[in-house]
Amino acid sequence: MPRAVEELHKFPKEEYLERIEKLMGLMEEKGVDSVYLSSGISFAYFTGFAYLATERPACMIITKKGGITFMGPSVEKDHLFSQTDLVSEIRTYLDYPGDEHPEVLFSRWIKELKLPSRMGVESMQFYPSAYGYEGPEIREGLPDLTLVPMGSDIYRLRRIKSDNEIEAIRETIKWGNLAHTYLQDYSADRRYEFEVSVEASLEASIAMKRTLGKSYTQKRFLSTPVEAVFMGQLGEHSAYPHSISADRPMKHGDILGTWAYADVEGYFSELERNMFLGEPDPKTYEFHQLLLKLQQTAFDAIVPGARGSDVDRAVHKFAKDHDLEKYLRHHSGHNIGLEMHEAPFLDVGDHTPIMPGMVFSVEPGIYVPKLGGFRHSDTVAMREDGPEILTYYPRETVELIIE
Amino acid sequence: MPRAVEELHKFPKEEYLERIEKLMGLMEEKGVDSVYLSSGISFAYFTGFAYLATERPACMIITKKGGITFMGPSVEKDHLFSQTDLVSEIRTYLDYPGDEHPEVLFSRWIKELKLPSRMGVESMQFYPSAYGYEGPEIREGLPDLTLVPMGSDIYRLRRIKSDNEIEAIRETIKWGNLAHTYLQDYSADRRYEFEVSVEASLEASIAMKRTLGKSYTQKRFLSTPVEAVFMGQLGEHSAYPHSISADRPMKHGDILGTWAYADVEGYFSELERNMFLGEPDPKTYEFHQLLLKLQQTAFDAIVPGARGSDVDRAVHKFAKDHDLEKYLRHHSGHNIGLEMHEAPFLDVGDHTPIMPGMVFSVEPGIYVPKLGGFRHSDTVAMREDGPEILTYYPRETVELIIE
Repeated sequence: MPRAVEELHKFPKEEYLERIEKLMGLMEEKGVDSVYLSSGISFAYFTGFAYLATERPACMIITKKGGITFMGPSVEKDHLFSQTDLVSEIRTYLDYPGDEHPEVLFSRWIKELKLPSRMGVESMQFYPSAYGYEGPEIREGLPDLTLVPMGSDIYRLRRIKSDNEIEAIRETIKWGNLAHTYLQDYSADRRYEFEVSVEASLEASIAMKRTLGKSYTQKRFLSTPVEAVFMGQLGEHSAYPHSISADRPMKHGDILGTWAYADVEGYFSELERNMFLGEPDPKTYEFHQLLLKLQQTAFDAIVPGARGSDVDRAVHKFAKDHDLEKYLRHHSGHNIGLEMHEAPFLDVGDHTPIMPGMVFSVEPGIYVPKLGGFRHSDTVAMREDGPEILTYYPRETVELIIE
Repeated sequence: MPRAVEELHKFPKEEYLERIEKLMGLMEEKGVDSVYLSSGISFAYFTGFAYLATERPACMIITKKGGITFMGPSVEKDHLFSQTDLVSEIRTYLDYPGDEHPEVLFSRWIKELKLPSRMGVESMQFYPSAYGYEGPEIREGLPDLTLVPMGSDIYRLRRIKSDNEIEAIRETIKWGNLAHTYLQDYSADRRYEFEVSVEASLEASIAMKRTLGKSYTQKRFLSTPVEAVFMGQLGEHSAYPHSISADRPMKHGDILGTWAYADVEGYFSELERNMFLGEPDPKTYEFHQLLLKLQQTAFDAIVPGARGSDVDRAVHKFAKDHDLEKYLRHHSGHNIGLEMHEAPFLDVGDHTPIMPGMVFSVEPGIYVPKLGGFRHSDTVAMREDGPEILTYYPRETVELIIE
């Protein structure tokens, strides 16, 4: 059966059913008959529902006998079913805090579901505190239930990406690559970073929407479905890895730091490069050459059986041997998926083995105060037969110079 | 002394000193000699430092004898002092999780500070869980200290805005208004919402940067310092208050829902309007007229001495009298400031009195399934002599029609 055009770039329903199946396995293991999910990421992961999390509490209750109940604010009343058919029941309150606190309602509704007494919980709170939300712990509203903490286990289900997820990440990289090409085309002396950034993002977004057609739905609340940004990493500001913004336009001689990706099924990827506005001076050139070697050291250390700490240690060793240790400001990478950063990390302190299906950024960086920051980030998938670098934007210094 | 051009649109240092002074008063009240702050919002509020919060824990410790110590990741090592001179000491770790968990280091460093035994804490956690961060509670690392929960009290300090804050919000509204004008100019049949949105945002952002010059610094990580967006509220999708995105371009006959604001000193504002692509049909016109009356009902209920619940109840009464109750999907508004939504709320369940210095959105809405959503959001400041509506974009149906 050929898939309808509307479905071509969306996860098939089986993807979600397999995830729920894995959750069921976890429930079996923990001896619980239901799970109380309270994070937007979990709603998205298990049902594909994109929830804009605010002060308004929401939860999903998944039971072993089947069936998912969503409890949440009425802003999602009609919206939920426009996105997923995996939820079997929805109960809503008008708004927070309301005449009755939503958690009083949740507790009553959960009692009405007549669940067996052991319930797995993502957190001990009904809902994470955000935007002024305050509320009790679950045990206060449901003293008769035995609560089994499962937050870390549920989190860990997301570590190994399925083929569908890796394909989604491949798709985000493709459009991020296009946006980055425009970013390089449009960067110029005296332009504001946001000018270049939104022009590149817009052009790539239009291309993506026209290419993927109706099959594409933006899942996150972003200005554009494809984004290519500088995060304030211009010239001397690029020495701050999290610069956020620079006060000034670009100028000839600037080292630039970038990030480009697209929102595909809510997934992130990382393509980050340095670019140079004009021929880099010898010192800049030399640091960039060292950066390329530093990143290659990380790539080389990703071998079957390696741990995140092995990769980061190899990077540290290279840095030490080349007198660069004082310029390190962060570890060598992190996993990536529905969240921009996910555990485990390529960090001296993270000894998790890198397993097939993991997708991570490889991005050791060198930050030279007053001169600038040197960092390339590539997205890498570990496959059964070794690592695959998914990002393919040019890396060589000469390819990144803007004349 | 005239202020330097670089400082014209930035808070004077006194603004932060007054906030710290208020915190000192709170510490006196609670009988603590130091406070452990763990949220990025608090860092921004008390020192003006914009922290991009990830899995990397950070804290600020403010002591009564004076002095602020920042503990956090090395990505902020040089960045911090480029933004604030209120921090007297900085201690950093390379990255998370690291050879030693940052909380082990924080605990050791805090012991070295030799603080008196009673410490106020924003949360019982060293750091809120995010992006894969996992860590212990503070009492595990610092069993000898008596921890005094002060999260709600610290949060409440932000409720009453100073004159500087209200001026910053006025400034975000001004540029949001310009962006919204462009949004109305550029909306057209067959255009993607993000096309219109980023063109409007870009044009307003360039105007703002050129107008405010060096005195403006973007504080949040946004594509553009001014943003005007639709959040997916096109046509039938506008019936979902949190639609996020629509799958299709705009088309003649669409009801549009908007939001425009600028990032000024990290503050938010809300200017939301309906716009109509082409003459609205009689039913749409009628609902929009009712929406205007519904919002006017809310404005009229904001009198000195009113509570948030009084305003929302007046809205409910109007809705009931006009058979609109079934179309309500949220309350009438929320406070606003460094966060997009802040407590207290204009909600039937929130009985907090509306006090001079509070700034909130007034935005009751009507959501008619399949037809569309009707909502205007205006930002209102309560002053000593009554409410002041800060947003001034046209509200009348005829003014919002795009031919």
